[in-house]
This record gives sequence, C-alpha cells and structure tokens, in this order.
Amino acid sequence: MTQKIAILGASGYTGAELVRLIATHPGMEIVALSADRKAGQSMAEVFPFLRHLDLPRLQKIDEIDFSGVDLAFCALPHATTQVVVSALPRDLKIVDLSADFRLRDVAEYEKWYGQPHTAPDLQAEAVYGLTEFYRDEIRTARLVAGTGCNAATGQFALRPLIEAGVIDLDRILIDLKAGVSGAGRSLKENLLHAELSGGTHSYSAGGKHRHLGEFDQEFSAIAGRPVRVQFTPHLLPMNRGILASVYVEGDPARIHETLAARYADERFIEVLPFGAAPSTRDIAGSNFCHIGVLGDRIAGRALVVAVLDNLTKGSSGQAIQNANLMLGLDEAAGLMLAPVFP
Amino acid sequence: MTQKIAILGASGYTGAELVRLIATHPGMEIVALSADRKAGQSMAEVFPFLRHLDLPRLQKIDEIDFSGVDLAFCALPHATTQVVVSALPRDLKIVDLSADFRLRDVAEYEKWYGQPHTAPDLQAEAVYGLTEFYRDEIRTARLVAGTGCNAATGQFALRPLIEAGVIDLDRILIDLKAGVSGAGRSLKENLLHAELSGGTHSYSAGGKHRHLGEFDQEFSAIAGRPVRVQFTPHLLPMNRGILASVYVEGDPARIHETLAARYADERFIEVLPFGAAPSTRDIAGSNFCHIGVLGDRIAGRALVVAVLDNLTKGSSGQAIQNANLMLGLDEAAGLMLAPVFP
Amino acid sequence: MTQKIAILGASGYTGAELVRLIATHPGMEIVALSADRKAGQSMAEVFPFLRHLDLPRLQKIDEIDFSGVDLAFCALPHATTQVVVSALPRDLKIVDLSADFRLRDVAEYEKWYGQPHTAPDLQAEAVYGLTEFYRDEIRTARLVAGTGCNAATGQFALRPLIEAGVIDLDRILIDLKAGVSGAGRSLKENLLHAELSGGTHSYSAGGKHRHLGEFDQEFSAIAGRPVRVQFTPHLLPMNRGILASVYVEGDPARIHETLAARYADERFIEVLPFGAAPSTRDIAGSNFCHIGVLGDRIAGRALVVAVLDNLTKGSSGQAIQNANLMLGLDEAAGLMLAPVFP
Amino acid sequence: MTQKIAILGASGYTGAELVRLIATHPGMEIVALSADRKAGQSMAEVFPFLRHLDLPRLQKIDEIDFSGVDLAFCALPHATTQVVVSALPRDLKIVDLSADFRLRDVAEYEKWYGQPHTAPDLQAEAVYGLTEFYRDEIRTARLVAGTGCNAATGQFALRPLIEAGVIDLDRILIDLKAGVSGAGRSLKENLLHAELSGGTHSYSAGGKHRHLGEFDQEFSAIAGRPVRVQFTPHLLPMNRGILASVYVEGDPARIHETLAARYADERFIEVLPFGAAPSTRDIAGSNFCHIGVLGDRIAGRALVVAVLDNLTKGSSGQAIQNANLMLGLDEAAGLMLAPVFP
Repeated sequence: MTQKIAILGASGYTGAELVRLIATHPGMEIVALSADRKAGQSMAEVFPFLRHLDLPRLQKIDEIDFSGVDLAFCALPHATTQVVVSALPRDLKIVDLSADFRLRDVAEYEKWYGQPHTAPDLQAEAVYGLTEFYRDEIRTARLVAGTGCNAATGQFALRPLIEAGVIDLDRILIDLKAGVSGAGRSLKENLLHAELSGGTHSYSAGGKHRHLGEFDQEFSAIAGRPVRVQFTPHLLPMNRGILASVYVEGDPARIHETLAARYADERFIEVLPFGAAPSTRDIAGSNFCHIGVLGDRIAGRALVVAVLDNLTKGSSGQAIQNANLMLGLDEAAGLMLAPVFP
Repeated sequence: MTQKIAILGASGYTGAELVRLIATHPGMEIVALSADRKAGQSMAEVFPFLRHLDLPRLQKIDEIDFSGVDLAFCALPHATTQVVVSALPRDLKIVDLSADFRLRDVAEYEKWYGQPHTAPDLQAEAVYGLTEFYRDEIRTARLVAGTGCNAATGQFALRPLIEAGVIDLDRILIDLKAGVSGAGRSLKENLLHAELSGGTHSYSAGGKHRHLGEFDQEFSAIAGRPVRVQFTPHLLPMNRGILASVYVEGDPARIHETLAARYADERFIEVLPFGAAPSTRDIAGSNFCHIGVLGDRIAGRALVVAVLDNLTKGSSGQAIQNANLMLGLDEAAGLMLAPVFP
Repeated sequence: MTQKIAILGASGYTGAELVRLIATHPGMEIVALSADRKAGQSMAEVFPFLRHLDLPRLQKIDEIDFSGVDLAFCALPHATTQVVVSALPRDLKIVDLSADFRLRDVAEYEKWYGQPHTAPDLQAEAVYGLTEFYRDEIRTARLVAGTGCNAATGQFALRPLIEAGVIDLDRILIDLKAGVSGAGRSLKENLLHAELSGGTHSYSAGGKHRHLGEFDQEFSAIAGRPVRVQFTPHLLPMNRGILASVYVEGDPARIHETLAARYADERFIEVLPFGAAPSTRDIAGSNFCHIGVLGDRIAGRALVVAVLDNLTKGSSGQAIQNANLMLGLDEAAGLMLAPVFP
Repeated sequence: MTQKIAILGASGYTGAELVRLIATHPGMEIVALSADRKAGQSMAEVFPFLRHLDLPRLQKIDEIDFSGVDLAFCALPHATTQVVVSALPRDLKIVDLSADFRLRDVAEYEKWYGQPHTAPDLQAEAVYGLTEFYRDEIRTARLVAGTGCNAATGQFALRPLIEAGVIDLDRILIDLKAGVSGAGRSLKENLLHAELSGGTHSYSAGGKHRHLGEFDQEFSAIAGRPVRVQFTPHLLPMNRGILASVYVEGDPARIHETLAARYADERFIEVLPFGAAPSTRDIAGSNFCHIGVLGDRIAGRALVVAVLDNLTKGSSGQAIQNANLMLGLDEAAGLMLAPVFP
C-alpha cells in the first residue's frame, strides 16, 4: 500500500531532492507540498527539472489537510521548524531535516544556534536520525531529527573507532571539504558562480561550526566522557558532495578492520580496501557513503576519508531511509539509485 | 522474466551509463561486460562509482558465451564496431551505440567517416534508433543503430516541423552547445580540466561535423528532397547536456503548436509553454528532452531550443528505450529517473 | 605626469576590474573611490584580492573633491548614472560604463530601458566608446559612453563587413555565449554556483536583449539604412568571456580578407588564419579580441567567431583604452597584460 | 639594459606562465624558447593565448646559441633536467623549476624520486629558491632550484613558527587543497574535465608525496633536529591555486604575531588580521601569498591557512623573483600584476 507523503518546505534544495527520490520510490506518493512564499505555484515553475512529474501545487502549511497523510518531511529553516512542528497533528509521523531537534540538551541548542529552544517537549521525543546507528529507535519513533550533513560524514568515519577504543580521543581532527548545495538556495555574494567557482576557502573555522554540537553530543555519549574534536570545513566549487579527511592517532590496520567489520552488512556504506582513497565523484547523486583508510609514514597516525552526497545520504536520502523504517518499508526502498558519473 | 544483458565496451562513458541505468531497471540483468584492454578487472576498479553493484568481471569479447544473452549493447568505437558485430551470433538482438550503422547509404558512411563500410549487409538490416520516430521498426528489429547525440537533439527540434511543412527548408541553422562527456574518455589536451573549464570554443565548424550525415539523411527523407542544414557545435565546460539553438523561418506560434501536438503523448519529450527557454540543468542525468519555442522581433523567424543529456537520452538512455521495445518491455522501464539538480 | 583618477561605483565587478588594471598602469593613479552602500569600508574589505594596493577608502560620491581629478570612471547602474553624471563638474572628463549614454536617440533609450532619459543634453555630448571605430571623436570627447560587452563583441565581427558591403544585411544572426560576470554581482538564484555551473540556457531570447539597441543604431548608421539582426545570448558556466558565433551570408574568403585588412594595425584585435576558430580561454583577463572566419559546406554562408573578455575589452579595459586617448596617453598604456591561461 | 632570457621547456604550463609574466616585465626579453617535441612551431600554435606577442620560434635545446643569453629558465621534467643542465655553459645563470636540485642530500633525491642523482656536483652548487628565506644566497647564485609549489605554501605558513619556537614540532599537520594546473599538461583520465570537475579526492596521501622531502630538509634545518610533518594533498576542481590548512599546536595569538612580524616588509606576503581566513580566489594569477591565523575552541591549537597561485608564486613567479635578484633587478620587477577576480 502506497504511503501518503507531505513535504513541508519544498522550494529548497533538500525539498526538491526529496521529490526527486520519491519520484521513483515504489512505496511513497506525494500528496502535499508546501512553500509559504511560493504557495499557488506549481513545482514545475519553482524547479523545472521536476516538470515531468504529476505533483500537487505548492500550498501554505495551514492549507494542508493532514488527515490522509502518513508521514511528513519537514525541510524548513531552523527555529521556524519548532513552531511549525508544534502545530502539526500529534500523531503525524515526522522526519525533520532542520537542526531543530538534533541536540538532546536544549542548552546546547541555545549555545550553538543562539536562541532558546521553544519546543523542549518535542525535543524529548525526537530520535537522532543517523540511521545506521539509531535504527531501532527510528523504527518506532514519531519524530526523527535528520543529522547535519557534515556531522553525518564525520560520524560515519569516527563512531566505530570511538566505540572500539582504537583511537586517541584527544587527537581527532576533521578537515572537511563541502559542496555548495549544502549552503542551500541562499542569495549570498560568495555563493555566486562568479565568486565561488575556481577557488576555495575555509569557513566557520576555529571551532565555530554548528555541527560541532552534534559531534560533541554523539562522540561523548559513545565514549562515556567528553570528547572535543577539531573541525574545519572548506567550501569547494562543486555542487554536491562532502569529503571529510579525518586525522586520528591509532593503528591504521586496526582502524581499517574496525570500520570494515562494522559496515560489512550496511547496504549504503562501502569501506574501500586499505590504502584506497575515495572520491566525491563516486557517490554524487546517490545514498552511498565510501570510506577509505590510509596509514602514514609516522607510525600510529592514520587518515580516514569519508565521502557522501550532502543532499542525499547527508540529508534527503537519509530522511527517506528513516521514513522507510518508520513506515515499515524496506529500508533501502527507492534509494538504490546509482551515482551519476561523470 | 528478467532479460539477460551483455554490454560490449563497458569501460567508456556510454558503457558506464548503461550500467548505471540498468542498475535500477526492473527487467534487465547484466550477465556479461567486455573491455578488451581492461579484461580481468572489476567494474569497481574501472568505475568506482559502480562499486555497490554485483557485476560480472570485464572480459574480452571472444570470451563471452552469448548463448544465454537476450540482448547486447555495443558501446565500441566506430569501425571496430562493424568487425565485432559481424562476428556476433546472427540471432542476437543488438543495440549499437556507435556511428557504424546510422547511415543507410554506405557511401555516405565512407564520406563522413573516411573509410569504406565493411558490413553493408548488417547496415541493410539496421534500424535507425530515434525511438519516437522509428518505434514500430525498432520493436521488430534485430539490430538498432543508436543516433548521434547531437543528431538526436537537432532532430527532436526539427523533424515535426519539416514533416508539417511549417519552416523554410533552405534556412535551417543549428548552433549547438555540447557538454564534454560527449567527447568520451579520450586523452586530449583540450579536454583537460585546466584547458576546458571556464571557457568555450566551436569545433568541427563549417559543415564538417559527422552528425551532418544523419541530419542530411533524415531531413531529406522526410522532406522528399535534399535538405542541407548549417550546424556548428561548441564545447562547453559542463559534463552532461546538449543545448541546440535551432534557428528557423516560419510562424513561431504554428511551430510551437506543431511540436506540442506531435509530442503530446511522448513520455520523455516535454514541450514548454510558448516563449519559455529550457536549460540543460533541468534534464541532466535523465532521459528527458525539453523543447522551447520563441519568436523574434523579426516576423517569420523563430528559435527552437532543445535540451537533453547526451549520455542518457542522447545515447545510453535511448539505447535502453530501444531495447525495452525490442524485448517487449514497457518502453519507459528503468528510464523514469528524475534529473539531478542542482 | 600621473593622471588623477576617480572611480564611481567601485564595489561592482567592472569597478574592481578598473582598479586591477590601473594597479599596473604607468600613467594613472586612483585618488577617489565611491560605493554608496559600502562607504567607509576599505577596498580590501570589499575585494580582498586588491589588499596589496594602497587605495583610498570608499566614499559617498558627494564626499569626493573632484577639483584634483583628471578623469572619472563611472561604473554605476543605468538610470542612476544619468542623475550622478548630471551632478558632476561640467569640465570633468568622464568615461561611463553604464548603458545610459550609448543610444544617441533618447527615444531608443526609452524603448529598450523602459524609462525616459532624464539627461538628453549629456546624451548629445556623449561619444560612443567603441575605440577602434570612434578613436578621433573619443580623443576630444568629455563624456564617453562605454559599449555593451555583447554589443562590442558583435560589432568587432560585423562592422567592417557591413561597411565593405560584403554580407547580406537581412541575414545576420548572432548566437552569443556569455560568461557570468557580465551579469554583475547581482544576487539571483540562477547566478548561484549550484544553479549555474554545469549547464547552459538562453536568456533575453527572441529579440529582447537591450544590446540590440546598440546593434540597430550602429549597423544602420554604417549601412545608411535600417539593419535588424537576430541575437540570442546564452549564459555559460564560465566567469569571464564572450564568444559570438556570427552567421552571415557572403563569400567567406572575402569576409576574412575584409576583417584581416581592417584590423591589421589594431593592437588589440587579432584576426586568426582563415578556418581557425578562437577560444575564450585565449583572451581571458586581457584586452584582446580574437576573430576567426570559417566557411560552410553551403556556398555563400560564413561563420565569424569573435571572443573577448567581457570585463576587460568588453568594459573596463575598453574604458581605460578610451581614457588613455582622452588624457593624451598611449592608447595601450596599462593594457598589454597577457591573458591568463590556464 | 634588458636582460636576454631563454626558456627551456616552453610548451608546458610553467613555461607558458613564464612567458605570460615576462610579456610585461620591464627588464627582460625572451630570445630563445625550447620544446623538443614541438620544435619548429610558433608559441601561438602551442599556446594561442600568447599570439599577440612577438616571440622566437620553438627550438630544440641544442639549436640554441647561449652566447647572448643572460639567464635561462629551465621548465623541464625532473631527471631530464639534470642531463640538460649538465650540458649547458658553466657560466650561464639558471633558474630551474623542476625537482632536480631541491634536495641537498642526493640520497634524499633518490629516496623520493626513485632514481640516483646524476649531477651531484651541480646539486652542490644549487641554492634552494624560496626567495623570502634564501634571498642573499640567491643573489649570488649561478643555479637556483625552484621549490615545489605545495612545499612553498607549507613553508610560508610554518618556517617563521619553527624558527621562533612557538609550535610543537611533533604535531604539524598540513591538509592541502591543490588546483589542477599543478599536475601539468599530463594526459591522464582523472585530469579530464569530465572526471575532475565537480568533485574532489586526496592523492599521494599517507606520507608519500614527494614534496615531503623538501619539508623534511627545510624544517629540520631550521629546528636543528629532525622534523616530520603529516601532509595530505587533495585535488580540487580549480585551475590555479593552493590552499594549505596547517594545523599546529601553540598559542594562536603568538603565532599570528610571529607571522605578521616576519612578513611585515615582504611585498608578496600578506598576513591577514587575526581570525580572517584567506581564499585562493584572491591571489589567482598573481605572485601574492595570503596567510590567515585562527584559534580554536580547544586551547593551544591553531590553524594557519596559506594561499598562493601554484603557477605564479608557487613556480614561475617565484622563478622570476629569483631571476630578478640574480640579474640585479628590482626583486618585484614584472611581478606586481594584481590577481584576477572574478
């Protein structure tokens, strides 16, 4: 039986990516799409690449009849999201793609996002949406909080290593390279083609990027003691993809074995042979994550490189993977699309 | 029942694109892959983006047992193709992606490709693979010749107009913008990122591009008299996509009506509202073709703009569409993947 | 003696390009820079690539003391420009880069720009700034109107041909490919890297682009009768550069001879050997214009391809070339920088 | 008096960049250009962007009369270079851009480049060409060895810090992002636009990159004891530019002060205000290097980010800067070209 889906915030990139993926999903049907400022328009007007699909018109959220909706994806800005989700039916299954329900401690939310959390009760209910590590909780959750795309990439590289105790917890450094779609459809000078193409720079460097909140929460929970990583993202002239170069101290072979063993049965995570380095080109447009492990000439140092598509495995693909679990569908339904290369 | 598929020439871009599309095709299974110089390697070594798939190793063509193969895609260079296809079983269904069987008159082949055709009997048997216009012949064909990617784009814009007699046949000009994957995986200085990115130039200008052979053949056949178009391709710093700006003389509104009527029932061809211009970004990674028609301030002049993905609708997607027909499957099976944007 | 220069509108791309070029100009010194909304900031804040230069801070225009200024470049938006220039000292030499003084007939200005011209007296005084064709008038002008960048490209290809009477005036078609910096630093969704890179589309197609006003004015004046061309620009994922594919009817060899003869003594215009096609990569960052001429398999048809850098030869380089003439300097002073490749 | 210059190996990117820079150099004139496989061709054929220049034809090296040559730039592949330089006149001034004379210990050369050094006497004579740190030696040198472009970037960030003793020498990590022109005009699949654009990957990771030889040599010499850094380069879809993210342990403020003081009088090195991060876009096409220093939320950790153009400050610009010194010219002659943005 086809599940009825609503997408709130369908005029941004993650909203459009949800539509793209659901277009060939065998068990989902889109019954409502919202975009407050573009209400009344068709998706073909907002995203002409979707014009071949027969989709409902964009509506305001309060015009949507949720009675026939099985699950809503919420792809709205943070802060707005809390308000919107609070007003939705209490029995509606929700997968949220914003940052609003990722941090279990609302004080941490206030610290990283600069404003108080207005829906702590919903936060208490939310499950952190890193599928491969919260699968059981997600299956029975009503509200799942999608992870940050950078946060997901770093965690795929590090969680099994922290859990297995094979790396020095005080010497973790994540140098990350991010594609520009992660910044969304924001109109900023430095996101213009003329300014972004052909060059690179770091941003939110020096321990300021908000996804550090997720790293702190998750890594500390696994380790059972505070873990603080260094994390510097760089913006690259590529539309999709994240590459995280994760520098750790530990035995490279053991690190590789730990990751390979942990992900052996995961359908979306591929650990490359020891010494092989992954490329973002090999996962673009797909829900796959490739991980490589390399040693160094300095004994006891290792480099773990993880790549994924920020719009797919990093947000909308992850969201559908979680929704599949919540709806009792095959976890991989609609998500086995091969990457697009070249 | 799943059809058994062989792909000859799997180490090039069109070969890889066939694998990408078949990966989620409900009715096809790849049983053999060839790549002479890379025989023995796995596809994951040649194209790491396909590493999640369980695929046969690359073989030499003469190592393949064709007895269990329902259909072979042949993605080899021209000239080589004639030799290879001549040696294949005479009852094997074949969709060829090379230029070797596109020109019905082998003298034209010799003129455009600079060497005699060595398999005129196979040529006599071959059906020209522009699906939307040769559907019935393709359904019963044994050997289908895929079209040139530029040739397909121009024909989608022009065939219905020539057939309907609504444009001046002596004033047709195609200014085409092509993405770089159309040049294949060739190692040439001008295809290096350092030399291709950030700029553009024309190539094979002045009536020299080989796809003119297809335009001449097809347009003349429709018109019942010789038709010669002007055609200038330009290479652009984009990986996928062709945009053909087709300048014609005739009534713009009638031209739009003619195209809209002709393609109303076609699942892969979308005619935009009059005056709207298509973008290659809206079809990248998909089997769709968008067509726009615009008038001009000079009465009696019109611009028809057609866009498609050269690797998909322009070659490998078209090939699968044809194979679907030849195998009795739904013509669109496996091909409804939405474009990838951004 | 060093000439004192003011740049009004220094926070846009053409303003920054003026600063870049003047940085190594032997006879000019920047004494004032304006940017109304960014007044008080340093250029290093607005354009960090200029941080090595010792430049005056950005001011509001009315804060500038023009008494010691020899020449002002005006790089402001159209409409605003008329108001600003009207308020400047009547004896100040001005090179304007906007569209405000390009059309001699103010009715044409109103037609193409959608609003009445408010400074028809200044328009009467303005000289059209296509240096190679208005050199004598520019030398003695007080106010020079820079051309449109697309308009310059098309004119370099066509003016000598119209003047020599070697092409059919009713069959001129300009298919133009433009880099994105021509759109300026405007915050528009379709100029974002995520949306512009990797694809192409036409814009202002169908006889609507404003630079047609310049083509009409100039070509008709040369021909002594109305000339109307077809003109379709396309936006490309490249930052700098314009390639104009100009389709004409006439004898290709004679067309080549005409252009080669006309430009033999021009330092910035290079006519390639017959049959060679130019590339935008070969002029990027420079004041050069390359022109190629190709025949066609259809007798009597020719393709003229002209390339230039929209920010340099198409606007700021042209502006300095004109200023050099107005100030009695060598016309090429500061402009012989080689293109940047790759 | 103009210095007579020969360029050996003029058909590669660094050779072309030398020509580009010398084109507007006030004190140099190119009298000979070599390119063995392209001997007899004009530079305009090999690099059309240089067609406006009046240059000697390409010759074989043994055809060049060095009697009137003041200085030769040698831009040949490593290994070949040793052979060629050995055969040049013993009194000819030479600036070499290859790797052949960078490592003072020829055993280190053999270790990193996999073959014995065949000209140890020339090596003994060679001065390491990092201008800002070997200025006095370079001034009187006959043979100067240009540095690796990555090696230069890392050293600009680190040398003053090691010298001042403000960082932990056992905890230095360089995560580097490199533009593709650094790989030269090599015909490799992974350098094709179709494969390189839109993505990123690491290469020579794990302590294998040859520029480590330079880091080891230089940093150990400064420190007076062995220093081994971690170094991982990544290839980015940009043509020019290197960004080195250098992670160190030490007091961020002191690190900033140390760098700012050291480079206060350097014309090509700009230390940004504390906390500001540089961008490769701001130095592209120029001889400038920008350096930023940021702290971290973890006390005692700092990030130093250095950017430069690999073809200019990283190789050909550096080479000219050195040649200027060797020829008694102003060190900055011909090198004050502003970066090209956008």
